[in-house]
Amino acid sequence: MTRFIDVPALTQLLQRKGVAPLMAELAEALREDFLRWEEFDKTARVASHSPVGVIELMPVADTRHYAFKYVNGHPINTSRGLYTVMAFGVLAEVASGYPLLSELTLTTALRTAATSALAARTLARPDSRRMALIGNGAQSEFQTLAFHNQLGIEEIVAYDIDAAATDKLQRNLAAYPGLRIRRAGSVAEAVRGADIVTTVTADKTRATILTPEMIEPGMHINAVGGDCPGKTELHAELLRAARIFVEYEPQTRIEGDIQQLAPDHPVTELWRVLAGQAEGRQSREQVTVFDSVGFALEDYSALRLVYRLALELGIGQEVELVPPADDPKDLFRHTGSAHRRAQLRRAA
Amino acid sequence: MTRFIDVPALTQLLQRKGVAPLMAELAEALREDFLRWEEFDKTARVASHSPVGVIELMPVADTRHYAFKYVNGHPINTSRGLYTVMAFGVLAEVASGYPLLSELTLTTALRTAATSALAARTLARPDSRRMALIGNGAQSEFQTLAFHNQLGIEEIVAYDIDAAATDKLQRNLAAYPGLRIRRAGSVAEAVRGADIVTTVTADKTRATILTPEMIEPGMHINAVGGDCPGKTELHAELLRAARIFVEYEPQTRIEGDIQQLAPDHPVTELWRVLAGQAEGRQSREQVTVFDSVGFALEDYSALRLVYRLALELGIGQEVELVPPADDPKDLFRHTGSAHRRAQLRRAA
Repeated sequence: MTRFIDVPALTQLLQRKGVAPLMAELAEALREDFLRWEEFDKTARVASHSPVGVIELMPVADTRHYAFKYVNGHPINTSRGLYTVMAFGVLAEVASGYPLLSELTLTTALRTAATSALAARTLARPDSRRMALIGNGAQSEFQTLAFHNQLGIEEIVAYDIDAAATDKLQRNLAAYPGLRIRRAGSVAEAVRGADIVTTVTADKTRATILTPEMIEPGMHINAVGGDCPGKTELHAELLRAARIFVEYEPQTRIEGDIQQLAPDHPVTELWRVLAGQAEGRQSREQVTVFDSVGFALEDYSALRLVYRLALELGIGQEVELVPPADDPKDLFRHTGSAHRRAQLRRAA
Repeated sequence: MTRFIDVPALTQLLQRKGVAPLMAELAEALREDFLRWEEFDKTARVASHSPVGVIELMPVADTRHYAFKYVNGHPINTSRGLYTVMAFGVLAEVASGYPLLSELTLTTALRTAATSALAARTLARPDSRRMALIGNGAQSEFQTLAFHNQLGIEEIVAYDIDAAATDKLQRNLAAYPGLRIRRAGSVAEAVRGADIVTTVTADKTRATILTPEMIEPGMHINAVGGDCPGKTELHAELLRAARIFVEYEPQTRIEGDIQQLAPDHPVTELWRVLAGQAEGRQSREQVTVFDSVGFALEDYSALRLVYRLALELGIGQEVELVPPADDPKDLFRHTGSAHRRAQLRRAA
């Protein structure tokens, strides 16, 4: 049977484990999987674009597990009462193709924030305490909690063109001790004096959320929202002046903020830094950019973790995603055809 | 909400509609969608190969609907009590990315047989009455019923290296009036005198199920089992002597029996024949081959049909594949975090 984790089941899991501890566990799973980078069969995701959004499939596999995620990106959705990003994923056994787990939401937010924190732990200055958070939508609390819990960020300076989104961020995290969330009146004000700048905006346009004059020496920029051809957040000059890190270069060249740069502009894959094969931050003054677009391996790590926890905690339901194969050469029995039923009656 | 059709729900649907009538309705839906060929955003499927099998994702979209299927192919599975092919698919709305339907099995068998019948109605001699059926596994009853119902095939001559599979085929279809299923002792015996030859074998090897000397003038060959790099069923000389039809040429060049031919060997896409843009069978004596590998559009058509019928008949359950978006910028509420719960209690 396949374990099916719907929204209420994942909520239950998050209540049992806690959001921040789960993201910390996930960041560790991500680190371990990134260190096995070369064992994975990797593919840049397969995108289907429409004028209003994108729908993508993101597969990845090692010799034991195959994972894929379905995810959309539709900035107009919020105006229609739907999330901008909706996702679900499946973990399967490579040896048989059998789907083990179907997990359907929230995980994208958890793994994106866990990946951002994992990268920042390697790339930001270790004494970072203040983070600017540009874009206060669905991802913002997850980014905040992951950076608070895993990097010791104490102060968030938040900005969104929609003031109600910032209200919601403050409200949702009001009760977290040791975390101050201050509002800024502009992007520039939010960024001023920050150690880390996280951008999680959603417009499917070539936006310039951050411009070179906002950037101070030693900042780490965690650029999450630019993740599609034509959807960027950073000024090209800012990128040229920074040391740039990416997840999977072939995908990020197409989707990341670096789509604005020459195709041979140097970038470093994060796994190499984690593995000690490449340098991360080279000085206190250097500006580092994690040009994050989201890679299938992150969903793989998240699905495996959720699968293990769901089994441990007895969460989720078992569903017949695949028919029971009493006789694996007999699929027809599951049609419940009248003739078949008549035979079964005769046999009984 | 997303409509979730599991195995029992699809069985219920098949009982209400009947297997053969449903496949006929599906063949009509396929024909209509093939006639809109140029409206679709098409991709050769994304395959992840392992030494024992393959896991694939098959996306396709027009301006209204996006569909994809997850499907595996593991010939060794039957020895472990699992199906060789397991699949599930999702239909989503292009305008929002919202998943409308999650359908999880059987549909691959239904749509493969419906596509075979649709192609044969165009390509086989209209007076075809006898079909050789090589490979009597999970697909065989569906192929038989579709050809019986949609082409008037009255006699099946069946062969499988596993005699128990042929027993099962005969048993499952024993009660169908007007359909004779005769067993043959070899492939050659099954093929002799047949109007149509259907091959649905599963070995992931470069097999040669049909050889040139078996083929008689005017035969139509419905080659279903060869659908992977290195997985073929037909002798290359047989292909060279025939007129070849494919679903989506870029995919079939990689996966179909034509992988054995030069990359510029002429083939005709089925939709062109259906649309009257290309000739199908050119003479009674010509041998025609439908080198079927399975294309994403067939799942699109099937998912749309199942969605419409499930709504009409009230079949399937509604599941929270995506969290309810009371406030689409607030995903965090679904974490059920203690702080959030405390706030909700205070608000209440």
